[in-house]
Amino acid sequence: MLNASDNELITRTGPGTPMGALFRRFWIPALLASELPKPDGVPVAFGLLGEKLVAFRDSTGQVGVLEARCPHRHASLFWGRNEEGGLRCAYHGWKFDRAGACLDMPAEPVDSPYKDAVKAVAYETREAGGLIWVYMGPKDKRPEFPDFEWTLVGEDQRLVTKRLQLCNYLQNLEGEVDTAHVNFLHRELRSPDPSTTVPGLQRESRKPDQSILPPGNLARKQFLISETDFGLVAMARSEEPDDEYYWRMTPFILPSFTIIPSGIDEANTWTAIVPIDDHRAWGFTATWHHARPLDEAEVENVTGGGGVHVHVDPETFLPLANKANHYLIDRDLQVSQSFTGIFGVRNQDLAVQEDQDGTICRRDEEHLGVTDRGIVGTRRLLLKLAKDLQKGIDPPQVAHPRAFRVRSVTATVPRSLDPVELFASGQPQAADAQALGAAY
Amino acid sequence: MLNASDNELITRTGPGTPMGALFRRFWIPALLASELPKPDGVPVAFGLLGEKLVAFRDSTGQVGVLEARCPHRHASLFWGRNEEGGLRCAYHGWKFDRAGACLDMPAEPVDSPYKDAVKAVAYETREAGGLIWVYMGPKDKRPEFPDFEWTLVGEDQRLVTKRLQLCNYLQNLEGEVDTAHVNFLHRELRSPDPSTTVPGLQRESRKPDQSILPPGNLARKQFLISETDFGLVAMARSEEPDDEYYWRMTPFILPSFTIIPSGIDEANTWTAIVPIDDHRAWGFTATWHHARPLDEAEVENVTGGGGVHVHVDPETFLPLANKANHYLIDRDLQVSQSFTGIFGVRNQDLAVQEDQDGTICRRDEEHLGVTDRGIVGTRRLLLKLAKDLQKGIDPPQVAHPRAFRVRSVTATVPRSLDPVELFASGQPQAADAQALGAAY
Amino acid sequence: MLNASDNELITRTGPGTPMGALFRRFWIPALLASELPKPDGVPVAFGLLGEKLVAFRDSTGQVGVLEARCPHRHASLFWGRNEEGGLRCAYHGWKFDRAGACLDMPAEPVDSPYKDAVKAVAYETREAGGLIWVYMGPKDKRPEFPDFEWTLVGEDQRLVTKRLQLCNYLQNLEGEVDTAHVNFLHRELRSPDPSTTVPGLQRESRKPDQSILPPGNLARKQFLISETDFGLVAMARSEEPDDEYYWRMTPFILPSFTIIPSGIDEANTWTAIVPIDDHRAWGFTATWHHARPLDEAEVENVTGGGGVHVHVDPETFLPLANKANHYLIDRDLQVSQSFTGIFGVRNQDLAVQEDQDGTICRRDEEHLGVTDRGIVGTRRLLLKLAKDLQKGIDPPQVAHPRAFRVRSVTATVPRSLDPVELFASGQPQAADAQALGAAY
Repeated sequence: MLNASDNELITRTGPGTPMGALFRRFWIPALLASELPKPDGVPVAFGLLGEKLVAFRDSTGQVGVLEARCPHRHASLFWGRNEEGGLRCAYHGWKFDRAGACLDMPAEPVDSPYKDAVKAVAYETREAGGLIWVYMGPKDKRPEFPDFEWTLVGEDQRLVTKRLQLCNYLQNLEGEVDTAHVNFLHRELRSPDPSTTVPGLQRESRKPDQSILPPGNLARKQFLISETDFGLVAMARSEEPDDEYYWRMTPFILPSFTIIPSGIDEANTWTAIVPIDDHRAWGFTATWHHARPLDEAEVENVTGGGGVHVHVDPETFLPLANKANHYLIDRDLQVSQSFTGIFGVRNQDLAVQEDQDGTICRRDEEHLGVTDRGIVGTRRLLLKLAKDLQKGIDPPQVAHPRAFRVRSVTATVPRSLDPVELFASGQPQAADAQALGAAY
Repeated sequence: MLNASDNELITRTGPGTPMGALFRRFWIPALLASELPKPDGVPVAFGLLGEKLVAFRDSTGQVGVLEARCPHRHASLFWGRNEEGGLRCAYHGWKFDRAGACLDMPAEPVDSPYKDAVKAVAYETREAGGLIWVYMGPKDKRPEFPDFEWTLVGEDQRLVTKRLQLCNYLQNLEGEVDTAHVNFLHRELRSPDPSTTVPGLQRESRKPDQSILPPGNLARKQFLISETDFGLVAMARSEEPDDEYYWRMTPFILPSFTIIPSGIDEANTWTAIVPIDDHRAWGFTATWHHARPLDEAEVENVTGGGGVHVHVDPETFLPLANKANHYLIDRDLQVSQSFTGIFGVRNQDLAVQEDQDGTICRRDEEHLGVTDRGIVGTRRLLLKLAKDLQKGIDPPQVAHPRAFRVRSVTATVPRSLDPVELFASGQPQAADAQALGAAY
Repeated sequence: MLNASDNELITRTGPGTPMGALFRRFWIPALLASELPKPDGVPVAFGLLGEKLVAFRDSTGQVGVLEARCPHRHASLFWGRNEEGGLRCAYHGWKFDRAGACLDMPAEPVDSPYKDAVKAVAYETREAGGLIWVYMGPKDKRPEFPDFEWTLVGEDQRLVTKRLQLCNYLQNLEGEVDTAHVNFLHRELRSPDPSTTVPGLQRESRKPDQSILPPGNLARKQFLISETDFGLVAMARSEEPDDEYYWRMTPFILPSFTIIPSGIDEANTWTAIVPIDDHRAWGFTATWHHARPLDEAEVENVTGGGGVHVHVDPETFLPLANKANHYLIDRDLQVSQSFTGIFGVRNQDLAVQEDQDGTICRRDEEHLGVTDRGIVGTRRLLLKLAKDLQKGIDPPQVAHPRAFRVRSVTATVPRSLDPVELFASGQPQAADAQALGAAY
């Protein structure tokens, strides 16, 4: 539970807000690189942190991100001509390069110095992992670019998708660090029957648990958190037969990224939720394997729309199953086959996340349980860093790009084993150790 | 005319408002029973008095109405599983019964007492007359359930429909107690010609008045009101030939119900308007005969969409003729056949009611006439009771369920007859007498 | 640049605002006359200066414009019966003539004096040039009706269209007086090739300039303004070979009208932008020739949708190319053929004008250039007159209807010629002289 004032603080990310200032200290993903396929191509208008922006790939192939409005009289640069190293406004021909410098004011007097005085608001960009990234904070505070493992592997080892999510970013982020919901929201009720099940619904059914939650049959879990140099790790542990523990580790990486735990040597999945404004966000999802190309089943999982990746309208990125069509819920399927009757892990998440008191949850009226420890830890960390920043204390987590070389795991191991040691015992599991807060 | 402050007070019914407090002292209709057709079936999400609610029929067949948001982290219980005596949230499996008690928190520790501490907001319900009713007020103030005659008769003696009305509830309620508008808004201009008229337009044409209101030809009426133990009765009386009076009596039953006057021994029609929020309301309409099954013509009138019942979209209950399509007005028909050119009594009402300064009428700028006595009386009564309630004085009208056994009449009788005596002279007219404020 | 307070003042035109008061001192166009085709026909509901209005053509053929809400209980008179010299409300039959007098209250007592006490808010109207005009200001301040030349010529000499523009009126008005944008926003990139170009795109390409703005090749212009007795004239002058000047003169006529400059003896085009509310406006465009019927090419230009007239939805007047469909921009066409890739001069204007910080431009954050002199002059004049009016000083420009007999010109003439003298030298150029502030 947050008081109403902290809830305001943690959910608002527009210009001038404390949480907006914290987001602006990190590199954040802005677009799929494929939205800007070629030099001098069509610009893209989009929103980020309450600002209206336009992105374009200039003649050299580098990407510029400018405030959408032309500094002159605020026509949208989206209508502009992308040509010869800059974006030229359609209204009067003022032209800006990707750094915001004005290259031309063709209707002003030839010798006018005005061109040197007017700048477009421009943000630095990077292209990595199939995404365009942007840094929107103070220039002298710009951190090194984070080397997420999935941005460093070969293109055939990675698949990245984007969606529009119609709620405040925090409702998604809380879902991502909330290990407890997986056994409910994403639960399958029957053993997969190839003739009747839908692709994607099998994914989370790692245990052969066919019940509709009969009393006592559900494994009770313990929930732990551990702060790290990239954010924190939320952990769930359950007692298994044969003197084993089942572990599920979810790294929360600042400012709003997570990694969904997978089995050792399985493909990993990274998520990001980036505010458009306080009521909408871009969700990015990257699935990758550190050591080999993604195989056919993994690609099917990404492109089939049934897992955490989701089918979207190609122009707006709105998921095809959405609030307007009740996420295509099938109430018969809900009775017999899946906990929700909604197809696909991401669609299930969207259904609950996009309406928690509407688009902004009233966290002063909720009732948290012991399962919510990861959520509580995430909120506390974000609030502490935002309040520190107001006092002039920079967030320490932006400093070390290697801190972001994180994976995550879920595994059943002997109770005698310390998971930190387990995942630190060899390569390539070293990255997993990082997920637990261990040093390399 | 109301001053702006009284207009605010009378139109706002959300949590914490004085008029909302008054509404919450009465049993109000919430849903058609047919929206919840079977035990453990699909829940229904809906709004009432500014609150977001979810209704479900539990395993025993009884109906629960809960605040839509789960007390845990405010996911909508609409996505929940309706199973084994309660509604289970899709997010983490918390389960609540129809009284709001938490039956299960499957991810919390097995011995946790937390389950007993967390309650869902739950409202008491009743099922009567084909409707689900709800009481949203203080438990110790709950009145007896009102025994409206139409809820007590056999199913073949009654037909009930529901519509979404896109304005403040009061604009509809004022229309229902406004006897004067019937001769204008619902006027037919020509004698019914079976080959050209549309079903439903004939209903209100009780007098063979074919004129387009030539000067002096319209019967001037007198308008009277009388307070009763259920609210008040608005009466219109006009002088008829042969030393007779034509009477039209409209009971207003608290908090927002009326009965449309019909001829003696004709079917009666009860209406209710229940706020969803301050700009939308549910309209319920029940037509019944106290002594016999509805006949074919009466059923046609209810199901044909041309009377006070109206054809609606089955999912949203939005009338098919609505503001977006200009209520399908036919301007040629308006010239030659009906006063409005709009088909159906209810559609005619909706056209004028859904735009009186938009969804909330500015009653500080209106100009009332002598015909508006019923409206003035209704407003005064509502304001007095709401203000009394703020001072701790309970509305007296909730006390006696038999007070609601009201019918209404329209009839032409000798001027020497006192209508109170007339309608009190025998059974089943006793109920009519009640409509005039007489004792049983 | 305006400070935020002046920007509020200049953009708000609802009842009670200073700029609204200024607009209300002028005759403004409200509807196409063709929207009210015949006596006792269907009324039209529409908005103007933040007021909801209804227009009707009464039995005599004259047009009434009333506040849309009936004075009684605020039902919309749009549903009313237009019959026998007045508009009769559909709710209770109250009837008003075009002056707002109440002709009938059929349900009130026959001898009631109430009818004489209740007036509908009514505005005076005129019909001229194919438009309905309205005066919404104080009756004792009503100016003479302006005799715009195009309202006085024969019907075959004139074509008038209307569109809905989805932004504050000022964003359009600024565009109309902004001569500088013509060479950019409306620029053609290639010589017209009949097999590939689209009609309408050729119109503004008066110079055979095929370049995509190579440095130095664009003629730099000088921008001048001159106040007149109808408003002001914005002028652009560029140096041409052979010791000539190219002149382009744009009259701004109070409160929000302009004339687009054309070559001598070409058809002229008048524009008006009239606020519906602060975020939407009606655009009217009239093309006429003072001396002869419009020829086939001119008619094609008006009706083809490619010039400053535009194809609209016949019911809503929303242009077919609009914000929702990105003005049908063709990015390939933008590279090779036109500066914007948007078809039609008006559509090009709409694209930039309908999003300058959204519907209301933040003029406190813009960066004006020397080309914006006409815009600066227009704003200053509007602000001065609105502020004067608050002090009780009437706008002088409303006094003389002959002041509105303006045309405009664009022409290349010897540098030695004074354009005022040039256009004053003979008939029919006398009107052009007026455009420059010269006396007849």
